[in-house]
Amino acid sequence: MLTVNRLDQQDARLLIEGARQKADEIGVPMCIAIVDESGNLVAFERMDGGKITSVTIAQDKAFTAAAARKATHEYNEKCVPGSLVFGIHTAMGGRLCVVGGGLPVSVEGEVVGGIGLSSGTPDQDMVCAQAGIDHFLTIRG
Amino acid sequence: MLTVNRLDQQDARLLIEGARQKADEIGVPMCIAIVDESGNLVAFERMDGGKITSVTIAQDKAFTAAAARKATHEYNEKCVPGSLVFGIHTAMGGRLCVVGGGLPVSVEGEVVGGIGLSSGTPDQDMVCAQAGIDHFLTIRG
Amino acid sequence: MLTVNRLDQQDARLLIEGARQKADEIGVPMCIAIVDESGNLVAFERMDGGKITSVTIAQDKAFTAAAARKATHEYNEKCVPGSLVFGIHTAMGGRLCVVGGGLPVSVEGEVVGGIGLSSGTPDQDMVCAQAGIDHFLTIRG
Amino acid sequence: MLTVNRLDQQDARLLIEGARQKADEIGVPMCIAIVDESGNLVAFERMDGGKITSVTIAQDKAFTAAAARKATHEYNEKCVPGSLVFGIHTAMGGRLCVVGGGLPVSVEGEVVGGIGLSSGTPDQDMVCAQAGIDHFLTIRG
Repeated sequence: MLTVNRLDQQDARLLIEGARQKADEIGVPMCIAIVDESGNLVAFERMDGGKITSVTIAQDKAFTAAAARKATHEYNEKCVPGSLVFGIHTAMGGRLCVVGGGLPVSVEGEVVGGIGLSSGTPDQDMVCAQAGIDHFLTIRG
Repeated sequence: MLTVNRLDQQDARLLIEGARQKADEIGVPMCIAIVDESGNLVAFERMDGGKITSVTIAQDKAFTAAAARKATHEYNEKCVPGSLVFGIHTAMGGRLCVVGGGLPVSVEGEVVGGIGLSSGTPDQDMVCAQAGIDHFLTIRG
Repeated sequence: MLTVNRLDQQDARLLIEGARQKADEIGVPMCIAIVDESGNLVAFERMDGGKITSVTIAQDKAFTAAAARKATHEYNEKCVPGSLVFGIHTAMGGRLCVVGGGLPVSVEGEVVGGIGLSSGTPDQDMVCAQAGIDHFLTIRG
Repeated sequence: MLTVNRLDQQDARLLIEGARQKADEIGVPMCIAIVDESGNLVAFERMDGGKITSVTIAQDKAFTAAAARKATHEYNEKCVPGSLVFGIHTAMGGRLCVVGGGLPVSVEGEVVGGIGLSSGTPDQDMVCAQAGIDHFLTIRG
C-alpha cells in the first residue's frame, strides 16, 4: 500500500487567494484551478472578467503540472520541433498542456497538487501561479 | 484470409519485465504498456511512482509503434514544420504519439506488437523500451 | 493536507492474480483492470482470448468503482428510467460505467482502489472481480 | 505467441457484394462496413443514397460485432433497464453499438471479422448483413 499526501480544500483556498491577490495587483482577471496530486480538481475560481477559454486551459495546466510533476513551461521549453519531446502537447486530446502557467505544488519535496492560471500572457499566468504557491507556503509556515 | 502472429500474455510479461529491470537500474519508475499487432492493450504496469500522465502516453506510444509499425522517435524526427509528415502528431485526437519511447516488437521480421514507456526523458523511455524487447527476444531464444 | 492510502503495484498483482484464477476456473478469458483510489490505472491484463471491447470497459468499470466509491452494479440498479440517477451512464463520455463487474477495493473501511472485469456476462465479471478482492485480502492478512 | 486469422481485402469485397445485392433487392441504399477480427476497418462502401449518420454507425456496428464477438442485436436484447448489461451502449464514447445490424463473421468457429450495415430499419440492416455473410461463405466454399 502507498500513502500519499494531497492538498485539502483549505490548502486550495490559500493557493487561490495568493494567486488572486497577484492577479488583482497586475490588473488581469484570471481563471485559477487547483488539483490534487492525481490531477483531479479540488477548487476553481473564475475571477469576474476571466476568459471562457481559460476555464479549460487553467484546469489542464494544473492537471499537467501535478500529474506529470513538472511545470508546464518546462515542457514548453523542450517541446520544440526536432526534440524528442515534441508532440507531447497533443497527448490526451490536448489536455496535456505545455503553455506556461501550470506549476506543481510541493511540500517537503513531494508533489501534493498543482495550480494552473490562465487569462493573461503566459508570463503573467506564471507569476500569479507562483504567487499562489508562495502565499500557501507562507501561511502554512 | 490473412494469418497474423501477435504477442500473447506471456510475451507481454517478458517485455514488461525487461523494461522494468532497466527502469529500476536507472532509477526512474515508469509506466509500461504492451499492445498487440493491432494496437490493442495486452498488459500494463505503472511502477510505483510512475506519472499519471504517462498512463495514457505509454499506451499511446505502444499503440502508435505497433499500429503504424514504426518507432515513435522515427515519427518525431520527421514531424517538423515544413516536412509533409508534420501534423501527424494530432491524428486520432493526439493518440498518434510522436514522443520517443514507443517501439514496435518484431519477431522474424513481422511486427507482432508494440511497447511504450513513459515517465522519464524520451531517451530514458527509449532505453527501457529497448531493454524490454531485448529481454523478450533473449528469453524466447 | 489530506493523507490517503492507495494500492501499490504489488497489491494490484494480487488482485489480478485472484481474478485470473477465477476466470480460468469458469473458463472465460477476461480483461482485468486495477486502478488506484483516484481512478488512475495501476495494472492491466488481457488474458489470451479476452475481448477487445473489454480493454476499455474493464478500465472504465474499475475507474467508476474507485472514483465513485461504488460498485458498478449498484449504479446499474438505480440507473433505470424514472429514477433520478438515470442518465449517469452517459457521464464523462460514457466512461462512467454502470455495467456490472466493477468493485471498489477497500482496506479498513477506506477505498484504496478499484477492480474492473470484462468479457463474460456481468455476473461472471462480478464473481471474478470479487475473487480478486478476496485473494488480495487473504494474502494481505 | 498467438496466431489469428482475419478477413483479407478479397473476403471483405465478398461480404460487401452480398450485402449490397440484398440492399438493392429491398431498395434501401446502405452504408456497409467490414472490419477485421480486432475491429479495425478493412473496407467500406456508402451506396449512392446511403445516410451520412450511417457512415459512423455502420462502422461502429461492425467494430462491436467483431471486437466483442457478439451480434449487436444480441446486446440490444440484454441492454434493457434493470439488466446488469444496461449501460454498455454508452461505452467507448458510444462506439459500442447495440443497434441491430452488426454481425461477427466466423469461419470454422473463429471470429475473423465483422460486418455492419446502416441506413435501413434495424431489421433491414440485419437482413443485409446476414446476406453479406451468406454470400461470403457460399463463394468461399
